Parts: sequence; structure tokens; C-alpha cells
Amino acid sequence: MGGAVTPHPETQAVLRANQALYDAFESGDIDLMSALWLDGPEAGSVACIHPGWSPLHGRDVVLRSWSMIMANTTYIQFVLTDLEARVTDDVAVVTCGENMLTDLPVDPDAVPGEAIAGLAGGRAVATNVFRRTADGWRLWLHHASPVLTRDQPEGMGEGNA
Amino acid sequence: MGGAVTPHPETQAVLRANQALYDAFESGDIDLMSALWLDGPEAGSVACIHPGWSPLHGRDVVLRSWSMIMANTTYIQFVLTDLEARVTDDVAVVTCGENMLTDLPVDPDAVPGEAIAGLAGGRAVATNVFRRTADGWRLWLHHASPVLTRDQPEGMGEGNA
Repeated sequence: MGGAVTPHPETQAVLRANQALYDAFESGDIDLMSALWLDGPEAGSVACIHPGWSPLHGRDVVLRSWSMIMANTTYIQFVLTDLEARVTDDVAVVTCGENMLTDLPVDPDAVPGEAIAGLAGGRAVATNVFRRTADGWRLWLHHASPVLTRDQPEGMGEGNA
Repeated sequence: MGGAVTPHPETQAVLRANQALYDAFESGDIDLMSALWLDGPEAGSVACIHPGWSPLHGRDVVLRSWSMIMANTTYIQFVLTDLEARVTDDVAVVTCGENMLTDLPVDPDAVPGEAIAGLAGGRAVATNVFRRTADGWRLWLHHASPVLTRDQPEGMGEGNA
């Protein structure tokens, strides 16, 4: 259920590009991350909304934010759920649940990487918009936001579409 | 600053379609709201993420959620800020700040519409994705999320792009 989306021949390529965003975040590799985002004449129209943040505009600012976030993340792992890809010839829109496992803040006096207090789970939801380029699908916009399930009325949850 | 977006001849039409979403919400008019969303063979691929919610998929479920939300809103007014429209021939992506003025919960014993405790402000950020149809631009996806400005690092706010 949930969107009788007409399959497009590029759907699998789009889903791979979507997965690559989370792989890059998990690996903390800014070069990998940079390669995923739209570049060239339209680099200024790139946008990114991290959970709870205002929008960031422009490829350089967006990549700087990822550098900061990844530098401040010692461990993160994603399991993506409810992947839905909508694909036209030039633009694709993916929605997914971002189920995260991260380390809890370490003791500030501890040796880095040695004193993980434990692991914490979290859930967000993302809209990822891609542009098709000669080099493949590139991220144009990422919008992630926290899910507060308590606010969602009965019968309006996932899987009810 | 913030996105040297190449102007597209359809930009103004897209921004009017974007404004119409908020006008429909303010007026609580579900017929007006229905007319704004993509219909036809791809109606199932419509998606909507209300602040804090998981994604809703499919035109019918999305419109049902708007009916519920509008029925539970006695007063809401929006001022949109930081509008950025990215337009291709068939798809447009708008980001904007949603600055809301709503009434505070009324005394449950009060006569409806007579006992507004006051007004409350709120701020969210939205990504609105539109498809171009023979009848004009129609909403394909709406993703709104709360802004928690305290979480945003210095130098990574709006206007810094």
C-alpha cells in the first residue's frame, strides 16, 4: 500500500544514491559525502535541513555542516525503513524513516573513543530530493526531522495509507 | 545570498501554488486544500509529513489528515519567510520558514470560539515539492518540522549561506 508509485527504470539507482548518503555519514567520510551532492552551476540551490535546524542553503555551507556533524559523531548507524522513491526523468524524491543507533555522550575526562557510556536509539524521518546529472543522481535537498510518535492520531500512522 | 538559483519562468507560478497551501490551511477550506494536491494516476505517490509525524502516503490519507488538523484548529495565521524556489520543467522544490500565530487551547467548558486564552507563536520549516500538470503546479510532498534554534551552531543559521 502506501503509494501505488509507478516504477521508473531509475528507481534502483535513486535508492542506491539515497543509501550512499547514510553510508557516507556512518563512515564520517567528507570526500564521499561531497561527491554525493549536486555541484556545478546549480550548487547554490542545494539545501539541507538537519533535525531541528533552519534550512542551510548552498553546497559549501551544507558540506560544512556535515563536516561539523560528522566530527562530533563518534558512532552512528542507520537502519532505513519505509523507503518510498518517486522518480521522474530529472528529479527523484525519496522519503524514509531514519532509525539511528548512536553512542551516548562520553565522560568529558575520558580518553576519546574509550569511554562510551552506552548506545542510544533515535528515530527521524527524511525527505531526500535528487537531481539526475550526467554523473548520476545527486542530492539536491535533504530534510530530516524528529518523529514524536505520541503526536500522531490513531489510524494516521505508517502502513495506514 | 543563500542559493544563486537560476530564475525559471515558472518560479512565480510555483510561489503562488506554495502560498495557496497556507491560504487553504488558514481558511480551513478542505475543498480548496484538495484542489492543490496532485490527483490522477500518481495520487498514490503523494506524501505529507506534519511536524513530528511519520510520513503519510497517498492523496486520500493526506487529505484526511488535513481535514482533521483543520477541524482542530480554530485560528491559524502564517507568515512565510526565507522563500526559496528551485524549479525544473516538471518539478519544483520550495523551502520556507512557517511563522505561525495560533490560538492557545480554550477552556474546555467554554463556548467554542468565545474563550480564546490568547495567541501563541511558533516556527517550523517546510519543504514543499510540486509537480507540473496540465492544470498547473500541484503539491506532491509537504514536509514540515519544528525549528529548535538553540540546536543550530553559530554561523550556520539562515542568511549565512
